[in-house]
Amino acid sequence: MSLWDGRFRENLDGNAFVLNASIAFDKRLAQQDVKGSIAWAAALARAGVLTKDESKRIISGLEAVGLEFKKGLFALSASDEDIHTAVERRLGELIGSLSGKLHTGRSRNDQVATDFRLWMMESQPELIGAIKGLQATLVMLAEDNLSTLMPGYTHLQRAQPVTLAHWFLSHFWALQRDRERLADLHQRVAIMPLGCGALAGTGFPIDRQALAKELGFEAPAPNSMDAISDRDFAAEFLFCTAMIGVHLSKLAENIVLFTTAEFGFFELSDAYSTGSSLMPQKKNPDLFELARGKAGTLIGLLAGAVATLKGLPSTYDKDLQEDKVPVFQAFDTLTTIMPVLARALETMTINDERMLAAIDPGMMATDLADYLVRKGIPFREAHNLVGNAVRVAAEKDLSLKDLPLDAYRLLLTGESNSEKEWQAEDVFEADLYQIFDPIKSIETKNAIGGTSPQSVKKQIKRAKSILKGE
Amino acid sequence: MSLWDGRFRENLDGNAFVLNASIAFDKRLAQQDVKGSIAWAAALARAGVLTKDESKRIISGLEAVGLEFKKGLFALSASDEDIHTAVERRLGELIGSLSGKLHTGRSRNDQVATDFRLWMMESQPELIGAIKGLQATLVMLAEDNLSTLMPGYTHLQRAQPVTLAHWFLSHFWALQRDRERLADLHQRVAIMPLGCGALAGTGFPIDRQALAKELGFEAPAPNSMDAISDRDFAAEFLFCTAMIGVHLSKLAENIVLFTTAEFGFFELSDAYSTGSSLMPQKKNPDLFELARGKAGTLIGLLAGAVATLKGLPSTYDKDLQEDKVPVFQAFDTLTTIMPVLARALETMTINDERMLAAIDPGMMATDLADYLVRKGIPFREAHNLVGNAVRVAAEKDLSLKDLPLDAYRLLLTGESNSEKEWQAEDVFEADLYQIFDPIKSIETKNAIGGTSPQSVKKQIKRAKSILKGE
Amino acid sequence: MSLWDGRFRENLDGNAFVLNASIAFDKRLAQQDVKGSIAWAAALARAGVLTKDESKRIISGLEAVGLEFKKGLFALSASDEDIHTAVERRLGELIGSLSGKLHTGRSRNDQVATDFRLWMMESQPELIGAIKGLQATLVMLAEDNLSTLMPGYTHLQRAQPVTLAHWFLSHFWALQRDRERLADLHQRVAIMPLGCGALAGTGFPIDRQALAKELGFEAPAPNSMDAISDRDFAAEFLFCTAMIGVHLSKLAENIVLFTTAEFGFFELSDAYSTGSSLMPQKKNPDLFELARGKAGTLIGLLAGAVATLKGLPSTYDKDLQEDKVPVFQAFDTLTTIMPVLARALETMTINDERMLAAIDPGMMATDLADYLVRKGIPFREAHNLVGNAVRVAAEKDLSLKDLPLDAYRLLLTGESNSEKEWQAEDVFEADLYQIFDPIKSIETKNAIGGTSPQSVKKQIKRAKSILKGE
Amino acid sequence: MSLWDGRFRENLDGNAFVLNASIAFDKRLAQQDVKGSIAWAAALARAGVLTKDESKRIISGLEAVGLEFKKGLFALSASDEDIHTAVERRLGELIGSLSGKLHTGRSRNDQVATDFRLWMMESQPELIGAIKGLQATLVMLAEDNLSTLMPGYTHLQRAQPVTLAHWFLSHFWALQRDRERLADLHQRVAIMPLGCGALAGTGFPIDRQALAKELGFEAPAPNSMDAISDRDFAAEFLFCTAMIGVHLSKLAENIVLFTTAEFGFFELSDAYSTGSSLMPQKKNPDLFELARGKAGTLIGLLAGAVATLKGLPSTYDKDLQEDKVPVFQAFDTLTTIMPVLARALETMTINDERMLAAIDPGMMATDLADYLVRKGIPFREAHNLVGNAVRVAAEKDLSLKDLPLDAYRLLLTGESNSEKEWQAEDVFEADLYQIFDPIKSIETKNAIGGTSPQSVKKQIKRAKSILKGE
Repeated sequence: MSLWDGRFRENLDGNAFVLNASIAFDKRLAQQDVKGSIAWAAALARAGVLTKDESKRIISGLEAVGLEFKKGLFALSASDEDIHTAVERRLGELIGSLSGKLHTGRSRNDQVATDFRLWMMESQPELIGAIKGLQATLVMLAEDNLSTLMPGYTHLQRAQPVTLAHWFLSHFWALQRDRERLADLHQRVAIMPLGCGALAGTGFPIDRQALAKELGFEAPAPNSMDAISDRDFAAEFLFCTAMIGVHLSKLAENIVLFTTAEFGFFELSDAYSTGSSLMPQKKNPDLFELARGKAGTLIGLLAGAVATLKGLPSTYDKDLQEDKVPVFQAFDTLTTIMPVLARALETMTINDERMLAAIDPGMMATDLADYLVRKGIPFREAHNLVGNAVRVAAEKDLSLKDLPLDAYRLLLTGESNSEKEWQAEDVFEADLYQIFDPIKSIETKNAIGGTSPQSVKKQIKRAKSILKGE
Repeated sequence: MSLWDGRFRENLDGNAFVLNASIAFDKRLAQQDVKGSIAWAAALARAGVLTKDESKRIISGLEAVGLEFKKGLFALSASDEDIHTAVERRLGELIGSLSGKLHTGRSRNDQVATDFRLWMMESQPELIGAIKGLQATLVMLAEDNLSTLMPGYTHLQRAQPVTLAHWFLSHFWALQRDRERLADLHQRVAIMPLGCGALAGTGFPIDRQALAKELGFEAPAPNSMDAISDRDFAAEFLFCTAMIGVHLSKLAENIVLFTTAEFGFFELSDAYSTGSSLMPQKKNPDLFELARGKAGTLIGLLAGAVATLKGLPSTYDKDLQEDKVPVFQAFDTLTTIMPVLARALETMTINDERMLAAIDPGMMATDLADYLVRKGIPFREAHNLVGNAVRVAAEKDLSLKDLPLDAYRLLLTGESNSEKEWQAEDVFEADLYQIFDPIKSIETKNAIGGTSPQSVKKQIKRAKSILKGE
Repeated sequence: MSLWDGRFRENLDGNAFVLNASIAFDKRLAQQDVKGSIAWAAALARAGVLTKDESKRIISGLEAVGLEFKKGLFALSASDEDIHTAVERRLGELIGSLSGKLHTGRSRNDQVATDFRLWMMESQPELIGAIKGLQATLVMLAEDNLSTLMPGYTHLQRAQPVTLAHWFLSHFWALQRDRERLADLHQRVAIMPLGCGALAGTGFPIDRQALAKELGFEAPAPNSMDAISDRDFAAEFLFCTAMIGVHLSKLAENIVLFTTAEFGFFELSDAYSTGSSLMPQKKNPDLFELARGKAGTLIGLLAGAVATLKGLPSTYDKDLQEDKVPVFQAFDTLTTIMPVLARALETMTINDERMLAAIDPGMMATDLADYLVRKGIPFREAHNLVGNAVRVAAEKDLSLKDLPLDAYRLLLTGESNSEKEWQAEDVFEADLYQIFDPIKSIETKNAIGGTSPQSVKKQIKRAKSILKGE
Repeated sequence: MSLWDGRFRENLDGNAFVLNASIAFDKRLAQQDVKGSIAWAAALARAGVLTKDESKRIISGLEAVGLEFKKGLFALSASDEDIHTAVERRLGELIGSLSGKLHTGRSRNDQVATDFRLWMMESQPELIGAIKGLQATLVMLAEDNLSTLMPGYTHLQRAQPVTLAHWFLSHFWALQRDRERLADLHQRVAIMPLGCGALAGTGFPIDRQALAKELGFEAPAPNSMDAISDRDFAAEFLFCTAMIGVHLSKLAENIVLFTTAEFGFFELSDAYSTGSSLMPQKKNPDLFELARGKAGTLIGLLAGAVATLKGLPSTYDKDLQEDKVPVFQAFDTLTTIMPVLARALETMTINDERMLAAIDPGMMATDLADYLVRKGIPFREAHNLVGNAVRVAAEKDLSLKDLPLDAYRLLLTGESNSEKEWQAEDVFEADLYQIFDPIKSIETKNAIGGTSPQSVKKQIKRAKSILKGE
C-alpha cells in the first residue's frame, strides 16, 4: 500500500520502488514525524476538522507508535516507502480507519520539511555541545600553558614567539564563529512548513501560529510555495559543518606537524595514536589526519547539496530527497570526531623545552626593528637595517644575538644613512641584546588580542564566560 | 623596491614577481587601504609612537593618495607588488622618509585582512540593494496580479491552482533569507584584525578598541593568530552568494519554462530577449539562462574557496591570497545581473488567459477529496475515491468536471465501502461540481502562507514593511 | 589485537578505534584482499622467503577465508580494524602462527591500494554494463521512432523540427563518451602498488612484473612513494561518474519537461511513476527527478574527494581512507538507477500527435531563409528578411504559413533592398509554402550527424556496431 | 547591429547587452574563429553554395581580419556581442555584402563549440609543455641526487630511508598521469561540431568529413543535437587541471615543510623567495604556497563547471556561455606557475647533511624485523619483537642502535617465545647492528619501483625515454 495508488492501474516496479524509497535514511525522523503528526491532529481538532474524541484517539495511537520506535519495537514493512507512510500504516493497524483522517489538509511535502526542520532543531544542541566540548579542552590547555613559549609561524617559517596558550585559543575563536553561524541558522530552521499543504496552503482553517508555537517553531512559513521547497537550511547547515571541518583541519594540520620528529612539540598518548602494520617504530597521528581528510568530504557534501538545488523549478521536486543523507553524514562525522580530538589533545604530552629551543634569536628581528623605532628611526628604515643585519649575520654564520655591537653599528655607515641622520652609537647600544629574550618579546604584545600573558588571561576570561553563558 | 628586501642578496625573479603580485586585483582595495592607514597613523599618534605633527603629515599625505585613486590619477609602478606597497610607495614620494614610520607595529597580514573586511562592509549595501531592488519588483508584480490565477506545479506536474501573486512572492522570501544571511554575516565581518601584527599582536600600546570604533568595526579581533588567517567571512560571503545564485536559478528555470511556446504564460519584452544568428523566428530568454548558469559558477567559487582553506596550518599562508578574486567575481556577477532580471520581469507580458486555461479540472481533485472529508469520509479514503474517479474519468476520456454524478456515486459501491458506512447519495451531491471553480479552490487556502487573495494581501503587506523597514 | 601494538603501552581508546576503523566499508574489498594475499604468498615463495609448503598452506588458508566471505559465514570480530586485519586474524585462526609470515615485505599501504584497484577493475564491467543497457534502450527507441517528428528546442524555445530518433540518440553519444572515459581510466587503474611496501619498496626480491601479471594488472607501479599515495584513479572514477550523472540529469530534465501537461510528448507508465499523498490526480516522474538530483550528489562526491587530496604531503596519510566511501556510493547510485531509467523509457507512451502538433510553421523560418539563399540572397540578408516576416506575421496574428505571398514580396521593397538587387517576384514564388512541411525540413539535414532519416539510419548503424563491438 | 534583430521591434537593453556579451573573454578565440570560418567558406564552395570566386573573396577577407588580430590592429566595436559577430562585422567592412553569405547553413551554436575545441587542441601543447618542463627539472634533480639519502615519511612520521632522487621522481609520475589524461582527452576534443547548425544539422550538402580533416579534427560529431551542447571536454579539461593542481599542491606542501627551520632539507634561492613587510628575518616559500592555494581554486573551477552543466535540457542553452572563463583561467594559472616552480626547484640549495642526520636508527626498525624474518621468525612476530625493542629503548632513552645485544636477546625470553621456538643467541647476533646503516636499508629495496639506487637508475632511464619520446 502506498499513500497514492487510487489513480494507478499498475503498481510501482520493484526496482523503482527501492530507488524511490527513502525509509533507509528518513526513519531517523521517526520521533519528529510522530511529534509533528500529534500536533497536526490537535490542530485539526481546533479547526473543527476532527472531533475532540477523534483527535484524542489519533494522538494516543501516535504516542504508541512513538513509543515503539523509542523501544526499538517498531517493525518496518516492506511496503513502507518512507517514514511518513510507515507511521501512518502503523497507526492504522493500531486504531483502524480513523487513522485515515490524520492526513487531512496535509501533504508529505509540508510534512517532510517539518520533520527535517524539527530534527535539526533538536539535534543542534548535540552538535553545539561537541563544539563546546572541544572549546573547553582548548581553554583548559590554554590555562595550563599561559606562559609556555613556542615559536609562532607564518608561511610555516619561524616568525615571532607566542605562548602556547595563545595558539590553543586561536582555535577556540574559530570554533566560536562556527557556533555563531549555527545559532544564526536557527532562526531560519525554526520556520514551520506545516500547514502549507502540497504547495498552495491547506484547505482547512488551521491556526498555524498556534501550531508553530506548539511544535517549538518561531513562526509559520510565510509562503506555501516557498516553504515546501526551501532547503536553504540544509545547505546552510552543510556550510556550517564544512567550516567546522576546515577549522578542525587547521588544528589537525598543526598537530600532525607538531608531532613530527622534526618539530617534536607534542607527543600523542598511545591511546590516541596508531602504529604501522609494517614499521614497528611508527606512531601515527591518524585521528588528526582523519579529521583533516574528512574536511574534504564535508566540503563535498556542501558542494553536492547546493548543486542539487541549482536549477530546480518552483515548489517540490523529488530531487529534494537528496537533502537528508548529507546532513546526517555531516552531523555524525562531527559529533563523533570532536570528542575524540578533544581527548587526544588532553592526553598529549607537551614538550616545553623543544618549543623554547625552537625560538631562535632571528625571531626577535622585529623586536630589534621596534627597538630602532624607539630610537627614532622610521620603521621602514629599521626593517631594512635589521634585514641587513640578518644577512650579515648569516654570512658570518652567526645568530643575530651573537653579532657583535660593532657589526650592528657598521650597518649605519652605509648608504642607507647617507644623510648621517643617526649616530650609530646612539642607535645600537649594549642594551639591544636584551631584546633576544623571547619573554620580553611576548610581553610587548600587550594590546587586545596580543600574545602577552596579561592579554591572554583576558582572552581566557572572555572565553570562559562564553562557555558558561551558553 | 619591495617592503622586505633588506635580507635578500638577489631580487625576486621576474616571473615569480608576476605570479606573486596581487596588485591586479587588490587595487580594488585602494580606498580601504588608505582609510585603514589613516586610522593606523592616528592610533600610532595616540600611542605616542608618532608625534602629532608626524601623524598629521602622514594622514594628509594619505588623503592625497586617496584622492589620486578617486580621480583615477594614481599611476601604478611596475614594482608595486600589491596595493599596500603601492600606497606606501606613493606616500613616500609625496612626504618623504617620514612615510617609513607608517608601517610601525603593523604587518601586511593584519593590514590586508582589515582592508578586505572594510571593503566587504562597505560593499554589502550595494549587494543588498540589488536584492532589494529585485524583491521590490516581485512585490510590485504580486500586487498587480493578486487575483491572477495560474496552475501551481509540483514535480512540474499540474498540482493545484495558485495566484500569480503568490508565485512571485515565493521568490521574495527566498531572497529575504539571503538578506538575513548577509546581515548575520556582518557581525563576523565587522571584527578588526588591525593591531594583530604579523601574528603575535602589535608591539606598541595601540588602543584597538578605539581604532575599531573609528574604522566602523564592532570589535577588535580577540586573538591575533586567528585574526590574520581568518577568512571565514570570505567563505561565508561566497556561501551567501551561491545561495542567491541558487534562488535566481529557480526563478530563471521558471521563466525559461513559462516563456516556452508550450507554457506560454509570459512573453519577455524585446529589450530583454535575444535572437538567433541562424533561426530568424527565435526569441530567447538568454538573460535568465545566464542567471541559471552563473549559479553553477557561484557554487564553484564557494567550493574553491573552502577547498583552499582546507588543511592550512595556523596563521598566515600565502594560499590566502586566493581569497579576493572569487569574492569580487561573485559580487560583480550578482550586482550586475539582478537589476537586469528585475527590469526583464517588469517589462514582460503576462498571459492571464493562457494561465487560466492551463488550470484543468483535475487540479481540483484535492478539493474534491476535501469535499468528501467534509462529508465525514476519512481523508485517506477520500483520496482513494478521487484517485479512482481520476482513473475512471481518464478511461472514459472525460475530465473530472464532466464525469456524471452517477459515475461518482458508483465509486462508493465498490469494496472500499464494503461496510456500507456511507450513502453515495449523501456523499456525492450535485453541488460537488462547484469545486471545479479554481477561484473557490484558492479561497479555501486561507491560512497564513496560503494562496487565497486575502492571505496573499497580508503577505504583501508584510513584504512591503520589510522593504521599507530596512 | 591490532597489527601494530608491539611498541605501545596502552591500547587505542575505544571511540578512537571506532573512528579509525574502516571495516564498515572496506569489508567490501574482502575478495580482493584474499586474492591479493594469495598472489603475495605465491610471490614470497618465488622469492624464496616462504617455502613451497608454507606458501601452499597459507594459500589454502586464504582460500578458506575467501570462501567464508562468499558464503556469508565470515564472522567479524570487534577488534577487526579493517579488512586486512580481519583476513589475517582469521587466517591465523585457521592455520596458526604461520599466518604471521604472510605480511613479510608488505605494508597495508600497498595492500589497500592494491585491493581498491582490483575492486575497481573487477567492478567496471558492471558499471559499463549499466551504461550499455541504457544505450541499448535508446537505440531501440531510436529505431522505433525513425520518422517520428518532434520540435527541436534551443534555449527551450522551439527551434527546428527533428526526429525523435535523433533526440534519443543524442543521449546515446553522451553516454558513449562516459564509456570512453571509463575505458581510458582503466590503464591508470591497472597499475599495481603491491610490492611498494610502506613507501620505500619491499625489502625482498619480489618479481613485481610476474606478480602484476598474475593479478591482472598491466604493470607494477614505477615509484613506490607515488604508488602508495596515488588516488588519482579514485578521483578520476568520481569525475567519470559525475559526468554520467550530468548526462542522466539532461535526459531527466527533458523527460520531466516532456511529461508535463503542457508538452505532453510522453506519458510514463504507471509502473514507473508515483503519486501524491495529498493530490489524487497526480502522476509524477519521481525517478527522473531523482536521477537529476543525484547528479548534484555525484558532483559533491567528486569535489569532496579532490578537496581531500589537496595539500597532502608525499606518501601515505590517513586522509586517504576517505577514498572508498564516495567511490562505492557513486558506483551503487549509478548501477541502481540506470536500469530503472532504461525500463521507464521503454515502457513510456509516446504521443506522436502532440509532438507533430507542436511543430509550428515558425520553426521552418530557417528553411525559408535557406530558400532565399538558394535564390542568391546572402544568408545574413535572408535571415533579416525572414525576421521581418516573422514580425509582420505576428502583428497580423498570422503564422508564417498563412502570410500571403504579397506580404512576403512587400518585404523586398523596403530599404533592405535599396539597391534593387532582387526582384520580389523572382525571390518569393508560390512554391515557398512547401517549405512549411516539417518532413521537407528534416530531409535537408542530410549531412553526417544531421536529423534526416537517412542520416539517422547511419547513426543507428554505427551505434549498434559500437554496442556489439564492445 | 546584432546577427539577429530582424524579428525584434526594440533593441536589447544596454545593461542586458553587457551581461549577455561574451566578447570580453571569447575574443581569445579570434584566430580559431577566423580559421573555422575560412574552412567553412571553402566547404560552402565545395557544396556549391558559394561560387569559387565568392569563396575566394570571403577567405581573403577573413585572412585580412586574422592578420589584424595577429598584429593587434583589430578594433572592437561597441556593438560586437561576441567574437563571431565581431569577425563577421569586420569582414563586411572589408568585402561588403558578400560577407553575408558566410553564415549560410551555420549557427553560432556549432561555430562557438568548434572555435573552443580548436583553441583547446591548439593550446594543449603549451600546457603539456609546461608539465614536461617541470618533469624534466625533476628528472635532472633526481640524477643529481641518486644516492642522496633522506628520511621517508608516512603520516609525516619518519618511516624508512629513501633517496632524494626517488622522492623527486615520485612527483614525475604523478605529472605523467596528468599528461596521459590530457592525451586521452584529445580524442574527445577533436570531434568537430561544425556543420551541426543550430541543433538539427546543416541544410546544405556539406562534406563534414573533409571539413573535419581540413581543420585538424579527427571526426565530425555524430549527432547534431549532442554536438552543440556537448561541453564534456571543458569539464574534463578542468578535471585534468584540478588534478595537476592537486599534484602541485603535494609538491608544494613538501617544499613548504622541507624549507622550515625544523626540517631544513632545502633552502630556496633568494630569487624565488619573498620576505615580510614586518619581520626582517623572514624568507617565505610564497610561490609554493600559491601553488597549493591555487589547487583549491582549480577544484572550484571544476565543481562550478560541472554544476553549471547539471540539469540543462537538450541542445544549446545560454548557460553554456559559462564554459570558457574557467577553462582559460585554469590554463593560464598552470602555464604561468609551472615554469616558475621548476626554476625555484632548480635553484634551491639541498642540505644533504640535514637530511642524513634526520635518519634516526628507528627508521631501520623494519629492516631489523626483516633481519629476524631471515632468521626464520614469522614477520608478525618479528614486528612485535622489534616493537618491544622500540619501547624498551625509549624507556632507557636509547636509540635502537645503542640498545645492547643482551637487551635484544632478553626480548625473546618473554611470553612471546613461550614455546621456546627460537634461541635468542641464534636470532640476535652481533651483525644486527649493520642494519642501522641507511645505505644498506636502501639497497635492499631493489624490486621495480623501490628506492635502491639501481632501481632508481632504471626509473630515471624510463622517465627520460618518456620525456624524449613525446
